[in-house]
Amino acid sequence: MGIVVRGGTIVTENNCYQADVRIQGETIAAVGDGVMQSGDTVLMADGCYIFPGGIDAHTHFDLPVGSMATADDFLSGTRAAILGGTTTIIDYATQFSGESLQQGLANWHRRAEGKCYCDYGFHMAITDWNENVAGEIPWLSREAGVSSVKLYMAYKHIMQVDDSALFQVLERSRDNGMLTCVHCENGDIIDNLIRQFRRQGKMAPAYHYLTRPPRVEQEAVNRLAALAEVTGAPVLVVHLSCREALETVAQAKARGVRIWAETCPQYLVLDDSVYQDTTFNCAKYVMSPPLRAREHQEYLWNGLKTDILDTVATDHCSFNYHGQKETGCDDFSKIPNGAPGVEHRLGLLYTYGVKTRKISLTQFVDKVATQPAKLFGLFPKKGTIAPGSDADLVIWDERRQVTLGAVSHAHNVDYSAYEGMEQQGQAIHVFLRGRHVVRDGKLCTASPQGQFVRRKPFCMKAYSE
Amino acid sequence: MGIVVRGGTIVTENNCYQADVRIQGETIAAVGDGVMQSGDTVLMADGCYIFPGGIDAHTHFDLPVGSMATADDFLSGTRAAILGGTTTIIDYATQFSGESLQQGLANWHRRAEGKCYCDYGFHMAITDWNENVAGEIPWLSREAGVSSVKLYMAYKHIMQVDDSALFQVLERSRDNGMLTCVHCENGDIIDNLIRQFRRQGKMAPAYHYLTRPPRVEQEAVNRLAALAEVTGAPVLVVHLSCREALETVAQAKARGVRIWAETCPQYLVLDDSVYQDTTFNCAKYVMSPPLRAREHQEYLWNGLKTDILDTVATDHCSFNYHGQKETGCDDFSKIPNGAPGVEHRLGLLYTYGVKTRKISLTQFVDKVATQPAKLFGLFPKKGTIAPGSDADLVIWDERRQVTLGAVSHAHNVDYSAYEGMEQQGQAIHVFLRGRHVVRDGKLCTASPQGQFVRRKPFCMKAYSE
Amino acid sequence: MGIVVRGGTIVTENNCYQADVRIQGETIAAVGDGVMQSGDTVLMADGCYIFPGGIDAHTHFDLPVGSMATADDFLSGTRAAILGGTTTIIDYATQFSGESLQQGLANWHRRAEGKCYCDYGFHMAITDWNENVAGEIPWLSREAGVSSVKLYMAYKHIMQVDDSALFQVLERSRDNGMLTCVHCENGDIIDNLIRQFRRQGKMAPAYHYLTRPPRVEQEAVNRLAALAEVTGAPVLVVHLSCREALETVAQAKARGVRIWAETCPQYLVLDDSVYQDTTFNCAKYVMSPPLRAREHQEYLWNGLKTDILDTVATDHCSFNYHGQKETGCDDFSKIPNGAPGVEHRLGLLYTYGVKTRKISLTQFVDKVATQPAKLFGLFPKKGTIAPGSDADLVIWDERRQVTLGAVSHAHNVDYSAYEGMEQQGQAIHVFLRGRHVVRDGKLCTASPQGQFVRRKPFCMKAYSE
Amino acid sequence: MGIVVRGGTIVTENNCYQADVRIQGETIAAVGDGVMQSGDTVLMADGCYIFPGGIDAHTHFDLPVGSMATADDFLSGTRAAILGGTTTIIDYATQFSGESLQQGLANWHRRAEGKCYCDYGFHMAITDWNENVAGEIPWLSREAGVSSVKLYMAYKHIMQVDDSALFQVLERSRDNGMLTCVHCENGDIIDNLIRQFRRQGKMAPAYHYLTRPPRVEQEAVNRLAALAEVTGAPVLVVHLSCREALETVAQAKARGVRIWAETCPQYLVLDDSVYQDTTFNCAKYVMSPPLRAREHQEYLWNGLKTDILDTVATDHCSFNYHGQKETGCDDFSKIPNGAPGVEHRLGLLYTYGVKTRKISLTQFVDKVATQPAKLFGLFPKKGTIAPGSDADLVIWDERRQVTLGAVSHAHNVDYSAYEGMEQQGQAIHVFLRGRHVVRDGKLCTASPQGQFVRRKPFCMKAYSE
Repeated sequence: MGIVVRGGTIVTENNCYQADVRIQGETIAAVGDGVMQSGDTVLMADGCYIFPGGIDAHTHFDLPVGSMATADDFLSGTRAAILGGTTTIIDYATQFSGESLQQGLANWHRRAEGKCYCDYGFHMAITDWNENVAGEIPWLSREAGVSSVKLYMAYKHIMQVDDSALFQVLERSRDNGMLTCVHCENGDIIDNLIRQFRRQGKMAPAYHYLTRPPRVEQEAVNRLAALAEVTGAPVLVVHLSCREALETVAQAKARGVRIWAETCPQYLVLDDSVYQDTTFNCAKYVMSPPLRAREHQEYLWNGLKTDILDTVATDHCSFNYHGQKETGCDDFSKIPNGAPGVEHRLGLLYTYGVKTRKISLTQFVDKVATQPAKLFGLFPKKGTIAPGSDADLVIWDERRQVTLGAVSHAHNVDYSAYEGMEQQGQAIHVFLRGRHVVRDGKLCTASPQGQFVRRKPFCMKAYSE
Repeated sequence: MGIVVRGGTIVTENNCYQADVRIQGETIAAVGDGVMQSGDTVLMADGCYIFPGGIDAHTHFDLPVGSMATADDFLSGTRAAILGGTTTIIDYATQFSGESLQQGLANWHRRAEGKCYCDYGFHMAITDWNENVAGEIPWLSREAGVSSVKLYMAYKHIMQVDDSALFQVLERSRDNGMLTCVHCENGDIIDNLIRQFRRQGKMAPAYHYLTRPPRVEQEAVNRLAALAEVTGAPVLVVHLSCREALETVAQAKARGVRIWAETCPQYLVLDDSVYQDTTFNCAKYVMSPPLRAREHQEYLWNGLKTDILDTVATDHCSFNYHGQKETGCDDFSKIPNGAPGVEHRLGLLYTYGVKTRKISLTQFVDKVATQPAKLFGLFPKKGTIAPGSDADLVIWDERRQVTLGAVSHAHNVDYSAYEGMEQQGQAIHVFLRGRHVVRDGKLCTASPQGQFVRRKPFCMKAYSE
Repeated sequence: MGIVVRGGTIVTENNCYQADVRIQGETIAAVGDGVMQSGDTVLMADGCYIFPGGIDAHTHFDLPVGSMATADDFLSGTRAAILGGTTTIIDYATQFSGESLQQGLANWHRRAEGKCYCDYGFHMAITDWNENVAGEIPWLSREAGVSSVKLYMAYKHIMQVDDSALFQVLERSRDNGMLTCVHCENGDIIDNLIRQFRRQGKMAPAYHYLTRPPRVEQEAVNRLAALAEVTGAPVLVVHLSCREALETVAQAKARGVRIWAETCPQYLVLDDSVYQDTTFNCAKYVMSPPLRAREHQEYLWNGLKTDILDTVATDHCSFNYHGQKETGCDDFSKIPNGAPGVEHRLGLLYTYGVKTRKISLTQFVDKVATQPAKLFGLFPKKGTIAPGSDADLVIWDERRQVTLGAVSHAHNVDYSAYEGMEQQGQAIHVFLRGRHVVRDGKLCTASPQGQFVRRKPFCMKAYSE
Repeated sequence: MGIVVRGGTIVTENNCYQADVRIQGETIAAVGDGVMQSGDTVLMADGCYIFPGGIDAHTHFDLPVGSMATADDFLSGTRAAILGGTTTIIDYATQFSGESLQQGLANWHRRAEGKCYCDYGFHMAITDWNENVAGEIPWLSREAGVSSVKLYMAYKHIMQVDDSALFQVLERSRDNGMLTCVHCENGDIIDNLIRQFRRQGKMAPAYHYLTRPPRVEQEAVNRLAALAEVTGAPVLVVHLSCREALETVAQAKARGVRIWAETCPQYLVLDDSVYQDTTFNCAKYVMSPPLRAREHQEYLWNGLKTDILDTVATDHCSFNYHGQKETGCDDFSKIPNGAPGVEHRLGLLYTYGVKTRKISLTQFVDKVATQPAKLFGLFPKKGTIAPGSDADLVIWDERRQVTLGAVSHAHNVDYSAYEGMEQQGQAIHVFLRGRHVVRDGKLCTASPQGQFVRRKPFCMKAYSE
């Protein structure tokens, strides 16, 4: 009645060994020798790795931005995710100005419900902090299953909050077992640089890049670290992109600040040379923070290797080049920010990190699955391969090779940020809570099987005790 | 025919969950539900934690120092170790001047053989580097099962090597899968300060402390990091004791240097106030590095919490106060350096770290067992609880309380550095490769059962792949 | 017709030598041997130092704060200044909400005119930044003789400006030859900590101290450095008080940011032990930043010694203990911030810096006179002893000893922050633009002789070229 | 009977003003208006700057290296110096192995005597430290007029000393008013890298560059800073060349270490692109430290601007390309290290620093004259323009333009490191202790007029008191 995956090499955050995995119902029943029981089905995984399902803790599906919405909604987004080996995504539900958190969250539940091929959770992005909203925090953490909030130090006049709101959110979150995720760029500086360029008639997409230098990110990270230090609240720097910010995180960690950091595949494998393109084409890479000079890549890989950086997420936020990115063809500041990538996270990190020996196989699992699970209250339900955990498994065959590009990707967007790049290895089988949903690299489930996951409160160092 | 440990909470480096552990022969056969087979014996562990056996990678048993030897030999030392929950020690075999590594290692094998209550391995401390010795490195790593060496940047004229030897050892070690452990203090500075005090007739034990300020440690750590960066070789800073050294390690990690760091319980729970004692009593705390000002403790705990510090070992090196420490009653520089502690490592870290929430339970396991196993080529054979791993298990009952002191400790030395301190929790049962060797807190094996463990080559980030 | 000061030792920023100084009219005509001309008067200065007149670039005289004003107005404040050897003060004229800069400046001119015993200039504190105000900047620098502005990163809802205002002021100032002085503390954090303590009923003056930890200052300094780096504008951190802020300034200087820093005597010679007083008495030391732990003093002295810190000013802002400080007897947040000190700057720095060899004599002159002159567009008119410079001279007799205290000081305030401390040396003669205004330590001028000084635009590194 | 220089702009370390300078005999009698006396000669300097004579504190003239000697001896070297505006050089007298300091110094006196066109002093380079040598230190400082020593942390087996010698020299020097100058590169690492390349048959001159990466310099600077901190002795890092070393100096200064740093024109205006030349030509740039990647230049200029770097010297050490550099045509390690430059120091710094506004005019004077004078016990005799100081003056006409190159330079060497570069401005007149020795850019003295200068003991912060 169970399923036994046999012959593969189990890779967890901290180990790599050969053993059978026995799945019973939605969870893993046992790991080891002699665990098969009569009636079990066997799936042979010879020559493959068995990873815990990936967790992408930073997606923006069906996000309304002005009068448009992201190209990928939850249906296409989660389909791409699960095909790439990601079995859980955590999307940024957003409270827009004037809304309660409850309204914001309900809105996102509506967008996602019934459409998800993988499991999903929400962070709550707070853009309008006030006394009423403060009163909703305990409900959010304890009843709504949302144990993380997000604040923006950038996007002046839209999402940006001031340090006072940050302070108050940090205190509330700390007291309610929540992790605060923060977009760290100084929005005031950026806003002024944007206005300066526009006054000067500098409207090409590459100017987006020049409005967001590394120091602007470093400043915000240092400020966040100070706020975390004074309040004692845990914080996560999302999409960290540069050396300066990394060094600031390292120093803060060394003095005991409860700070963690996420980076993204685009900062690890792409660089700012794309902005030398003088056509509008480089609008495809308009994202925030922007891609950085090549030398930063080495620092980021080292940061993963030495655990200064804790997780890898995609910040998947896709807009079609035609019709959407083009909105800003006369003004870089009107180009919607973001790029697609949810499908390629494991593949890119495996190919450009593990195969090149920049990080180890167990670190790979740690960054794409285990640490996100721990930081976001999903561990040990998700993020590892252990008795009692959800049977979210990825059977990874590194003998497969895939060429990335807009023609073949599962994203519902008209371009790829990784066009033509090669990926080594592929998720040939994926189990979602015991169900075999991807078989031979193809979706084998008629309807979306993903469920909303209520996340546990944040626990210091993200470890269960 | 197997043993099933049931009802306890399994704690590994990254997880904490309830499940059965099934031991068959010397290893763990399976973990999970439904793993018991007919004929198995059951040990109930209700209300207890099940830890992987501790690994103390820094001991000095039966070490000859001048005309004396340490108070603890392998018999008393490993008995204390296993009673404290440590199932593997790695002792520093030393090549003395004029010897080959083979001679040095053979010497230590002789000292240890048949006397060990826990498993044991050796690092090779090299004090006389030359071409012949260089030629022995491949043999050491590949045939002798010794995949780490140690060098001293201190102890001028005795153990100290110069940077050229360090460079050459790092290159050889790197090429032969070895980790280089380094005692980081600038011995030239220390030697001059010692001579200065002696010239001035300043002979009391507290002067030992004044010859080794934090800057002297920081300097050596920075130098080692530079050597590691230039050679690309992996290094471990042993017994890191101060804020300055910690910050230097953090910076080196942030720029990708392959550097790890160990600290010890004495630096975490004791401080330099002991040196204000104007009697000879403070000779008990003459060790190198010395205890530091209280403010450093917070940095060290934070370093463990944020993984800047990787392991906790004891540097157990015991000398009797009477007869041994007293050798230096007229001259601090003649006091043999070191203090006992191998028995108390888990207890102190659990009590002053986990119970006070400075570190989490999984971090505790990581620092005392998993990371040492990984760094020293013992993983996954040792250091975790997983199918295929050695059945080295510690059943920890946190309801027990123990008062530390010379009367009750198992060390064969006439004083305790922790006299009168309380320990929360105790290793009530210990399994060594499947054998039940400690029962109800008492040794239950007639003869020493420990074996020499051949260690695998060092692997980047100490992860198996 | 001239005056020749003879027999003293001339001390300038960079030299210390014996020579005659010949004054003709308001300026120095020549320095050297054989410079006396027939008809000259001679003042013998045997055994004394001849310093350039001190410049205190940070005073608050006649400052309205809520319904009260500072205890010292320009009359008593500048009388105290000149008796202490300060021949020029630069006061913070403030634009209050709703005012133009012109109105704010006119207001301060009215307060000062005809009342100043020493020369005086103004910085312009901007608290209400808008387009109209931006338009006044060129006038301020080029016509009004005010080549520095000040912004507050603290005092939320009162003086605090956001980063966008900071950015814009920096750009305008850079383009108009102005230096931007900034009060660096994160006002949002402070405001929240104040509210927290008040909610908890923690109302004693010592809570003021706890609302402003060093990290709050470091954060603001780092943010300012980032703004200075991005805009390329020169900035001055006023009243820097702690190690963390100092290190941040050093790092910024090392990467070429145009940042300078001022500290004050209170941070160099007093410490936070005063806040242990549980009576209201410690309200005397309620200032922002607050006094720091004793260990910070050593860093500040080192900062002066190594030129990381550039100037010493007083931030003189006096309120009577009775009637004024007492306003906050039930609520620390209502205690007016500040303490007196303009009279004692040279004396304290000479006694606790030069006499103890923490800094040299030439550095003393540099910090109290030359650097302020350079940074604020007064050099070489003021701040040195050279042909063509104003004859602002202080004849300092180090054989005199003075006991500081409320009874004897010239400040018009009912307490002294330095009660009972000894001062070595005294300004026995002071010349202001060639006039002998202090003789034998006493004021010898019937009426105030100070003039408003129009300051030149800021020049990189404050050097004339 | 005196000389009055009129119409020029006097530039000192801290000031820039128009006034007459009256020279009487060897010194400056007065500065100011109305200082001319009957019988004086007038030299008009309209449109020119009047600088204090330059001090180049780092030259190697007539230095024996193996079987050869540097191309420039004291005759050609000091002639080039004074033509370039340098009126004092301090050369590195060297104690070779087995010699006493007295012998070493006598040797250098013999080499220099009667051959110097500018004034000259000596540092004492100690390469063989022992008890006898230690006993000579007081004599050196107090009787021989040599108040600085030099040690090498590089050049293993030749000049390199170990940390113990460094410690002891620092203590002796500190107690005898001496500054210790240190060549900071880790010679052990370099020696091993050299041997590695040679074993691999990598013999081209560019390999010299690869044996000395920035980290090797940073390590030595950090070590020196630690030694300076523990001993309290003042130290000078000579020829600092890279960002990493600069940051280490900045941090040490921030914590109060008595550390200063010198850089050289070659590191400011040349870069490592020269080593891409695959011919032997790049042997011309074989020097230690080597030229660095272009990005370091900006850090060094910033270091000068922010006073992290204190002085600029040349490390002039010339070897002919033909016959001398060529010695190493088959083995880079045999190429004599060094390059010419003593003539171009003021010109390069003026052209590439002052004219491009990287540093100010007063900073220029500070770095090339005042700071060297202060650090090396020559101030105020030399290094400034003030009554009583030596009349060492440079009349600089910035309207002149000079093209640098081997054909036109005064160095006695067959190549120029600056071939074809343009220099803005020229020293058209030079006075050495009141004598007019360069007129219209040409030497106008028949015989060398330079004298040996006995230097005063080192004084904290190099300021006279």
